[in-house]
Amino acid sequence: MLSNKIRIRVRYGEVDRMGYLHHGNYALYFEEGRTELIRKLGLTYREMEDQGILLPVREFHIHYYKPALYDDEITIRTSLIKYPSVRLEFDYQMLNSQGEVLSEAKTTLVFVDAETRKPMRVPEFFEKLIHPFFTDQA
Amino acid sequence: MLSNKIRIRVRYGEVDRMGYLHHGNYALYFEEGRTELIRKLGLTYREMEDQGILLPVREFHIHYYKPALYDDEITIRTSLIKYPSVRLEFDYQMLNSQGEVLSEAKTTLVFVDAETRKPMRVPEFFEKLIHPFFTDQA
Amino acid sequence: MLSNKIRIRVRYGEVDRMGYLHHGNYALYFEEGRTELIRKLGLTYREMEDQGILLPVREFHIHYYKPALYDDEITIRTSLIKYPSVRLEFDYQMLNSQGEVLSEAKTTLVFVDAETRKPMRVPEFFEKLIHPFFTDQA
Amino acid sequence: MLSNKIRIRVRYGEVDRMGYLHHGNYALYFEEGRTELIRKLGLTYREMEDQGILLPVREFHIHYYKPALYDDEITIRTSLIKYPSVRLEFDYQMLNSQGEVLSEAKTTLVFVDAETRKPMRVPEFFEKLIHPFFTDQA
Repeated sequence: MLSNKIRIRVRYGEVDRMGYLHHGNYALYFEEGRTELIRKLGLTYREMEDQGILLPVREFHIHYYKPALYDDEITIRTSLIKYPSVRLEFDYQMLNSQGEVLSEAKTTLVFVDAETRKPMRVPEFFEKLIHPFFTDQA
Repeated sequence: MLSNKIRIRVRYGEVDRMGYLHHGNYALYFEEGRTELIRKLGLTYREMEDQGILLPVREFHIHYYKPALYDDEITIRTSLIKYPSVRLEFDYQMLNSQGEVLSEAKTTLVFVDAETRKPMRVPEFFEKLIHPFFTDQA
Repeated sequence: MLSNKIRIRVRYGEVDRMGYLHHGNYALYFEEGRTELIRKLGLTYREMEDQGILLPVREFHIHYYKPALYDDEITIRTSLIKYPSVRLEFDYQMLNSQGEVLSEAKTTLVFVDAETRKPMRVPEFFEKLIHPFFTDQA
Repeated sequence: MLSNKIRIRVRYGEVDRMGYLHHGNYALYFEEGRTELIRKLGLTYREMEDQGILLPVREFHIHYYKPALYDDEITIRTSLIKYPSVRLEFDYQMLNSQGEVLSEAKTTLVFVDAETRKPMRVPEFFEKLIHPFFTDQA
């Protein structure tokens, strides 16, 4: 398993009339979580995209338990639990500074060729980078 | 069942580097869909909120089949299929101008008292308004 | 002079904790205004971009007089007042349904070659399309 | 003068089809800049708002010199140059990691009473906090 934690402070413009982080903006935070997880592997998502490999989201499922509020400093825990095949599945937990779980989510992404816009298998260089984190499953 | 359709043109600033409507922005479109569905009942979500009834989203599940692109005119079909109890469940389909389904989603919302921020039962006035659409289930 | 009007209903997720349309989101509305103004000329900004001509914003100046609120139906009046040279200047007014001016803004855009990312002169096809609207200035 | 610096990494969803930080999203970064500048004074904007003092933006003027790109780590330098009266003026510079100025902006905010939604003078507690930074002007 591969996982990390990032901290984000909720911005004023990201909050709605209820004073809650707008439910659509969670996607941005989780995206930041998996960007940093990929960076931890020694590559950047930007480079991958510049080399012609896209990673669009195919499925997103989220439970909102408690709201994140403006100016709250929250933690996003991002995990790659399953060894990827065509699909790449990330799990997320959002926690407040007291460690309470505010939200849990899962995204499924696919590797897509930027030219053809068709799904492709996990690139070899990516497999090599994540292999050490899944030794017992490989 | 209660349903409606709205049309939205994808804005430049809502699209990402791939040229796709950013996956987090779908939530804004579905929110617009259910706002208009509620308006069809003869009340507005704004009024409800001003009267102290909030409707935060508790769960959101979406499948992205094909991307919506910048300047595409898409259709959002919003449906209230089940008679609401404590929870209000909306189903959504996003279609392009050729009628292809680009995305399907479901949101679960709860009625919350603005003062106490505690969940509450479906308000009576709301039940009265939706009753005619669920005559065989009532 | 070339001008148009579009109507937009303020979305829930675009409003902040004060209940006001977040000041950063005005840019999206004005962008929609100029997109529709260009469409009125018989071309689309998407096509221009697909043909390798970008129109990034170089300057944005806005006065916020009165807030636009959630669910308000507002009007954006977009005008191209000056005959463009290297720069393209649009003026905007945001009005509420009573005709009150809520906000006034101006954006300056430049034509940029998508390949080189360098500024370029106004494309000929664009000049031809706008010429009839500026007959006394041409 | 009172000033600070914050670092922000440009998020995927904040970037447009050109690969540039969307021009409307700069407002969110500057807002974060002034939020942190206020925190440096020993109070938070959230507390101020909870105590009934709002700070809506009345004017925003920005020059975009060079684009900020996805995944760039940029710096926002926020300054309060003038001693505030009814208006609070912040100046901003956005710099990339090489120290190049990408953008410069200015916002004018007003203190507003949350109850009446009318402008008010600078609160006394705020004046006390900023006084030490403007000793020669006071």
